[in-house]
Formats: sequence, structure tokens, C-alpha cells
Amino acid sequence: MSLTVVGSIAFDAVETPAGSRDRLLGGAAVHFSIASSQLAETRIVGPVGDDFGPDEYAILHARGVITDDVEHIPGGRTFFWAGRYHRDINQRDTLKTDLNVFEDFRPKLSDAARAAEVVFLANIQPELQREVREQCAAARFVAMDSMNLWIDIAHEELLRTIASVDCLVLNDAELKQLTDEPNLIRAAHAALELGPRAVIAKQGEYGSALITREGFFGLTAYPTGDIVEPTGAGDTFAGGLMGYLAALRGEIDDAALRRAMAYGTACASFNVEGFGSERLYGLERAEIDARVAELERISAF
Amino acid sequence: MSLTVVGSIAFDAVETPAGSRDRLLGGAAVHFSIASSQLAETRIVGPVGDDFGPDEYAILHARGVITDDVEHIPGGRTFFWAGRYHRDINQRDTLKTDLNVFEDFRPKLSDAARAAEVVFLANIQPELQREVREQCAAARFVAMDSMNLWIDIAHEELLRTIASVDCLVLNDAELKQLTDEPNLIRAAHAALELGPRAVIAKQGEYGSALITREGFFGLTAYPTGDIVEPTGAGDTFAGGLMGYLAALRGEIDDAALRRAMAYGTACASFNVEGFGSERLYGLERAEIDARVAELERISAF
Repeated sequence: MSLTVVGSIAFDAVETPAGSRDRLLGGAAVHFSIASSQLAETRIVGPVGDDFGPDEYAILHARGVITDDVEHIPGGRTFFWAGRYHRDINQRDTLKTDLNVFEDFRPKLSDAARAAEVVFLANIQPELQREVREQCAAARFVAMDSMNLWIDIAHEELLRTIASVDCLVLNDAELKQLTDEPNLIRAAHAALELGPRAVIAKQGEYGSALITREGFFGLTAYPTGDIVEPTGAGDTFAGGLMGYLAALRGEIDDAALRRAMAYGTACASFNVEGFGSERLYGLERAEIDARVAELERISAF
Repeated sequence: MSLTVVGSIAFDAVETPAGSRDRLLGGAAVHFSIASSQLAETRIVGPVGDDFGPDEYAILHARGVITDDVEHIPGGRTFFWAGRYHRDINQRDTLKTDLNVFEDFRPKLSDAARAAEVVFLANIQPELQREVREQCAAARFVAMDSMNLWIDIAHEELLRTIASVDCLVLNDAELKQLTDEPNLIRAAHAALELGPRAVIAKQGEYGSALITREGFFGLTAYPTGDIVEPTGAGDTFAGGLMGYLAALRGEIDDAALRRAMAYGTACASFNVEGFGSERLYGLERAEIDARVAELERISAF
């Protein structure tokens, strides 16, 4: 099945205890598609400026990502983000956010992108996410991310968008903030009441949890001691998750969602082991499968 | 097999969003033994004052806890702790800590307590923990807890004690603090270097992780939306864990430790659903087994 992701394409500058980089290919839709494309054909929808050139396209094409829907804004500059990670890599400070061409982005999807059966709405204004969702009327499974900013300043709009998707993927803290409920289980059930049939809480170093009307699933993070730079780990998780679902022939039920989360977790573990998504550039499918198998072993008792 | 636990016996006063209590039976060794006694015969070692009377003994005896090694200090008062929980129940403030008879506690074990095959050293001064460990020379499995205070003010002493046990059970944050290593996997491996063959990181609402030289195991918390008061959840977890191991006839290998953690997780989930350990007072073994079976289902993919 085909997969479309809509979201940011960016350059990132990062400082970490392991070193610095001033120009990494980043952005939610990029991290997502570099992971998902290993599992299913992926179309990326997002805006870039004049500074986004053949080198960047080459990275995406090498992973098989279809870039026909990348929108080039002449005279514009690509979204830029700079951050500094602490010694505890779970802590970071944002140093700079230049939205640039992303500020006025209105997604325009080609017929091929609209025809996707599986769609991921990465973190953008909820109103734009809903526009995309409505364009993809044929999709059998649509998931979305969001962030604290929209929970604060576009709450009602966000609730309407959540009502239109099948699956909400948020950080643990965002899910609690969205529902004003400090207990994860209650927060997730409150989010289910908004409309989606699945809620996935990303819990960083602790793993992730799936909550549906059928039940609960908790999955540990892949245990890696080699964390270099975690930007985009959440989007990479979503990429592995949705890539697995897009490749699936059968029904997207709880069992499928559980296995999809293992794929997301495996992909995210590679993401954090290098700068940007670099660790995934040359990654073989068999390496992802091996970590999924390892996740099965380390979760069983 | 027999099980001995050494640690605090206390009265707790708590304020929570669900109500207040000014005199709950508490203390690490109490929370532990009320859980462990459901699985294996448990002897509790700890000091009490004149205010600890027949009602408190009756609670312990009803669970089958052997109290011969409870040391009554005439004229003394029992350890008292008061705390206030926030709306986010993972946050709390300590309002009062009166060590009372616990301040000068030096564990004196009866022959029966020393003969235990499985021993848990709840959080007390590391020097006292080591004295107990040396008295229990025949034990086949000894585990210990500790806290940030001892990591700060008795670091070398604590390292020597850790070297003398089989298993270190700490909060995630304490493990990172002990080893000065912000990554859990690296922190756990640094802790293994100190001597124990197993390290268990308690991660509160996220679950727990086991790290041994053989590998890693990550277990979700039991998903409960009904959290009333979580004091003693970590000690209850240790009680379920060690109770399972004490009842085990076979070798205490990684497979046994994994299943033991599921018993700890199940017991802890009951602890948080009531004030103090009250939810466990009338608990049947079958109810614990049912949650362990549920944990298996919600961890599998």
C-alpha cells in the first residue's frame, strides 16, 4: 500500500556531548520518510527553499522516497532549527527556530499523494492537518502527531482534527496536557473519547504505550547505550510504525498496531545512534527485523 | 524457602487528591512483607516504639508475616513520615520525617531470620545493610535497595555493600546518580561492575527494567487508572519480586528474575490502588496471578 507523510523538511544544527553539526537534513517528514521508506513506498509532502539542493534530494532518493510533492518556494529558505543537548541527552535547549518557507506552508497534494491508503500528518497547524485529512478521503488509516504549542493556542481546532483521524501519536506529556489528566491511562481514554480508535504515547527512553478500546500494550525502548543525537526519534518511530502498517495486507487491528510499534521502536533506536537520520541512510531491512526480533526477546517472560 | 526483610516499620500520614489519612501502617519492610507474605513465608526485622500495638501486629499476622524479629524499643516512638501528593500523583512533598526509634536501629537477627535463603535489605544505612548481609551467610539470593541520601553522604560504604549482594534494586534516577551516568543502559552496566549479577531499575509509572550480564528485560507498569496513594509502591514491587524468588524451587536465573518482576509489578499495582498497603490486606493469591497473566498479554506482540 502507498504511504503519504505531510510535515516539515528542515536543516538542523545541533550541539551534543559527542560533537556538533551545523547542517543536518532534518524535519519531521524527513525523519519519518527515511524510516518508513524501508518498509513501504513513501511520498513526502513539505516545503523547501533555494538552499535545498541535489545533495538533499539524493539522500531521500537513495532511500526510495518519492519527492514529487516536495514544494520548492523560489527565493525562500528551508526551515531551520538549532538546539543544544545536555549531558543527559533527554534534556535539550532550542537555540533557534527559523520557520522560513514553513511559515506559510499550505499542503497541496498531488493525485498520487491523495490516493495513499495510509497517511501520517506530522506536527503542523491542526487546521492544515485536517485539510490534508479531507483530501485523502480514500485512506484506510490516518495517524497524526501534534505538539504543546497547538494544545495551548489552537485547542478547539486540534480537537476537531483529532476527531478526524484513526490514531493519535503524542508524547506522554503532551497527551496528559491535551486531556488535562495526569494519569496516562485516564489521559489516553479521554483522548479515545475524542474520536481516534488508537492512542499511542511516546515515552522516550522508557518506550511507548498503545491504548485502544480493546486494551493496553506497553513496549520497552530498545536498550541502547550508544545515544549520539536523538533529534527526530519520535518521527522516526512514527515512520517505522506507519511504514509497517502501509506494507500490511491484512486488517489494521490491535495485533498489527503492536507489531507496528515494535518496528517504530527499532527504527527510532537507529535514529538516536547517529546524527540526524544518518544511521538509517545505509540501513538494511534485515537490521530492522533483527531489532524487532530482539525486542520480542527482551519483552517476554 | 524462607525470606527475611530488614528495614523500616512506620506510621505514615498522607494528603492526596482522593483524601487524607493521618495514621497508616507503612515503612519499607511493612510494604514489602505484606506483598511477599502472599508468596513465601516472610520474617520482618525492624524497630517499633510503644505506639505500635496489637492492631498493627494483627495486620501483619493476618498476612502470615512472622514478627518475632520486630524489635520493640520501650519508651520509644515508631518512625513517622508525612507527605503530600500533588494532582500528578508522581509528584510529592515530604512534610515531616521523624526517625524516632529508627535512628539508632541496629538490626539483630534471630537464628531463624539469619537462616533465610532469600534476603531483602530495604533502604537503611549501607553499613547496617552489610552487617545484615554478613549475618545471612547461607542466603542464596540477597537484594538491596538504597536512596539518594546514601549515594550522597555514604558513597564508599554503599559501594562496598552493593559489592556484597546479588541484586541491586533502585529507582531509575538513583541508578543514574549512583553511577554518574545519564544513560540507563550504561548506568546499569556500571552498577553490574560493582559486583551484583542483576540490576533492577524501578521506573514508576513506566515500569521496570532488568539488566544482567546475559541481557536486558523491560516490563511495562500494570496499566491502572485508579491510583489512590502510591507510598510504598517500590517496596511492594520488591516484596512481590523477592516473594516469588523465595518460593521458587529452581535456579534464580534471568527467566526467574523476569517472572519475579511481573509478580513485583502486579503487587505494586494493587498497592497504588489504595491507601498504604490496604488494598493488599485481603488480597488473594489468585488476584496477583491474574494480573501477572494480564501483564503477559499486554507485553506480547
